[in-house]
Amino acid sequence: MADLIQEWSEKIHKQLARKQAAATELLQGWVREQTVQGNERGLQEQLACYLQKLGLEVDLWYMDGKELSQHPYFVSPRLDFSESPNLAAVWKGTGGGRSLILNGHVDVVPIGDRLQWKQDPFGGEIVDGKLYGRGSTDMKGGNLASLLAIEVLRDLGVKLKGDVIFQSVVEEESGGAGTLSAILRGYRADAALIPEPTNMQIFPKQQGSMWFRLRIKGRSAHGGTRYEGVSAIEKSTQVLAALARLEKRRNERLSDPLYAELPIPIPINVGVIEGGKWPSSVPDLVKMEGRMGVAPDETMEQAKQEMKQALAGLAEQDSWFAEHPVEVEWFGAQWVPGSVPSDHPLMRLLGETFQSVTGKAPVIAASPWGTDGGLLTALADTPAIVIGPGVTEVAHYPNEYIRLADIFQCAAIFALTILRWCEPAE
Amino acid sequence: MADLIQEWSEKIHKQLARKQAAATELLQGWVREQTVQGNERGLQEQLACYLQKLGLEVDLWYMDGKELSQHPYFVSPRLDFSESPNLAAVWKGTGGGRSLILNGHVDVVPIGDRLQWKQDPFGGEIVDGKLYGRGSTDMKGGNLASLLAIEVLRDLGVKLKGDVIFQSVVEEESGGAGTLSAILRGYRADAALIPEPTNMQIFPKQQGSMWFRLRIKGRSAHGGTRYEGVSAIEKSTQVLAALARLEKRRNERLSDPLYAELPIPIPINVGVIEGGKWPSSVPDLVKMEGRMGVAPDETMEQAKQEMKQALAGLAEQDSWFAEHPVEVEWFGAQWVPGSVPSDHPLMRLLGETFQSVTGKAPVIAASPWGTDGGLLTALADTPAIVIGPGVTEVAHYPNEYIRLADIFQCAAIFALTILRWCEPAE
Repeated sequence: MADLIQEWSEKIHKQLARKQAAATELLQGWVREQTVQGNERGLQEQLACYLQKLGLEVDLWYMDGKELSQHPYFVSPRLDFSESPNLAAVWKGTGGGRSLILNGHVDVVPIGDRLQWKQDPFGGEIVDGKLYGRGSTDMKGGNLASLLAIEVLRDLGVKLKGDVIFQSVVEEESGGAGTLSAILRGYRADAALIPEPTNMQIFPKQQGSMWFRLRIKGRSAHGGTRYEGVSAIEKSTQVLAALARLEKRRNERLSDPLYAELPIPIPINVGVIEGGKWPSSVPDLVKMEGRMGVAPDETMEQAKQEMKQALAGLAEQDSWFAEHPVEVEWFGAQWVPGSVPSDHPLMRLLGETFQSVTGKAPVIAASPWGTDGGLLTALADTPAIVIGPGVTEVAHYPNEYIRLADIFQCAAIFALTILRWCEPAE
Repeated sequence: MADLIQEWSEKIHKQLARKQAAATELLQGWVREQTVQGNERGLQEQLACYLQKLGLEVDLWYMDGKELSQHPYFVSPRLDFSESPNLAAVWKGTGGGRSLILNGHVDVVPIGDRLQWKQDPFGGEIVDGKLYGRGSTDMKGGNLASLLAIEVLRDLGVKLKGDVIFQSVVEEESGGAGTLSAILRGYRADAALIPEPTNMQIFPKQQGSMWFRLRIKGRSAHGGTRYEGVSAIEKSTQVLAALARLEKRRNERLSDPLYAELPIPIPINVGVIEGGKWPSSVPDLVKMEGRMGVAPDETMEQAKQEMKQALAGLAEQDSWFAEHPVEVEWFGAQWVPGSVPSDHPLMRLLGETFQSVTGKAPVIAASPWGTDGGLLTALADTPAIVIGPGVTEVAHYPNEYIRLADIFQCAAIFALTILRWCEPAE
């Protein structure tokens, strides 16, 4: 099999080099499409055309939110997906080979504070070989690597035994409804690659995570006699402290060596706070929304129970919480944790290919965040491995960027991996 | 002068007793009008008709927000007052007497958490002699007392030397633009009574207050690697602690004996918090809005400076704040502190009248909250004293109520006070 690398490596690299300028412009266009939640249609339609011209069987579909919401794995803050189609494109094999899904999401998170961006967040500006913009790293750069891998193989006239399925899904950033829909539509394969930004580390294990909403009660009063009320904002600081203690406990007992390098392997992040309605009233309600990491070796339910207990424990330090317990709701997004054995055939094959292209041994680690890989592994029986260009450190940040060279290196690794996994037909 | 009390007390009480049922229904109607900010027009028009029928010279006017906003004392979160007219009604005297303004606001604060209300917040339900609803105590009950005082005197055929001016203003809850407009329209008098809920204590001194907005910065990151960002929500807990220390310092040095009974004479209340946009992102910005009490013996500017210094001090305990200072903005509402000397003739006259009606010595105290009295005193040279039915403890709270008996007692005190201050014409 390593002969395939010797045979094809140079051709693939040469073909990729020819495509660099056009591919860079393509990615700039993708970033400029501003595919925040609810605004994915434009880019998905553009991609559908592109893949059709490449000769793949294209499937662009609109999810029925109402129907999909009946599924136990459905999580999304919305049911209307009329501006958010999913896309799959199949490169049909001649038969007898292993199939592979290349799964990536097209949705991007909001830009946050505009003032912290030095560039236009949706400009796609290129400085020193880095392309800037929301979604560049998470994960349009990775999607481009997948697309280029398919494109160069087709340019070079390759025919494969196994199917290659390119997926551009929506809704990954809020729980995976896009990938869920693709699975229910019948898309599955012998394995999957997800080019989320791992800085080209290989992640066989993926942290799960889920979103929570807390309601912290107070008692209203006039601000001028605030001592006669109970401030839900003041009470919230105790809740934040309890969450910090819970996070510490959960991480201290985590022994998986793949997580050894991470300061907080399974973090609890409070992302949104909102409370009170009037500056001169004592606030009687604060809502917090956040994300709780779930270890690969625990269930979602176990994690939920632990959160519940930690919040119930507040009653011991403050009787207010005994009478007004903090309410927890699990809503919106959820990523099932995923795990592929280290000795899975694609793990070995991918590692060898990586080494051959980069000249370095691959770093095997565990993802500090959830991906759609959990769903693919758990629900579609499609073992999913996460590896992609771009660094986690800039995902969801202002000034997000991706190194263009990393995308092309990933494309080369993917092209060779496809060739070896799906096998040439002749 | 005390002869006037002997002569009129019984007549006034009898006439008030006849009016109780109708007056109670009137107040229920007022509460049901839901006069939250921007929804005052209906009740103001209804009041205008009522006062016209009583024979007063009625003036219902719409403020020009743009023009008014040029005034240094203007503070309001809005410029559009098209649904929020002001109302003044003059009972013209025959001349040669002292004039009196009865000033009250028609706007009410929002209801807060609906679930904490046992009654319909705008139902005006009566249980055990208490009328429930937002605005019952703050301050429609007080306004009814003013109106009844005028009405019974007119019923009894009284003619006065001095003018009595009934004012129903908007916008008191967010800074006094209504009273400011009334002053600029020319309304002023030898003194003013403001029936805010003091539980019939007499407040010659009024705490000032102003609204602030703080911006606390963080640095965004993916929630799964939250340790790579800086949470603006976590930083906010340090800001809250700094505000608590500032409040403690400011109150410890307060020596005014009128404030001796209050746990926190000039509180700093954080009423609103809002930060972050996405549960699984580290929040990069938190906004807080609140109210800072201002002592009668300090200027607004001094209080602002002290807040600024306290927030600047955060940089010493955390270098994050040195690089990302908390921003302060003074916005929306502002109540100028006010002070009437204890030996002012209306103070003496009011105290005697109170004693005669209730059989008890009046309690002289200082208001724990700002009122429009500061503007009247400072800008219109109209010394304003605050005294009214209802207890502060229920203002701005769920289940706000007012004891109906307290309103009628206040009406009697006001009727006699008007009679003695403005003097019968014949």
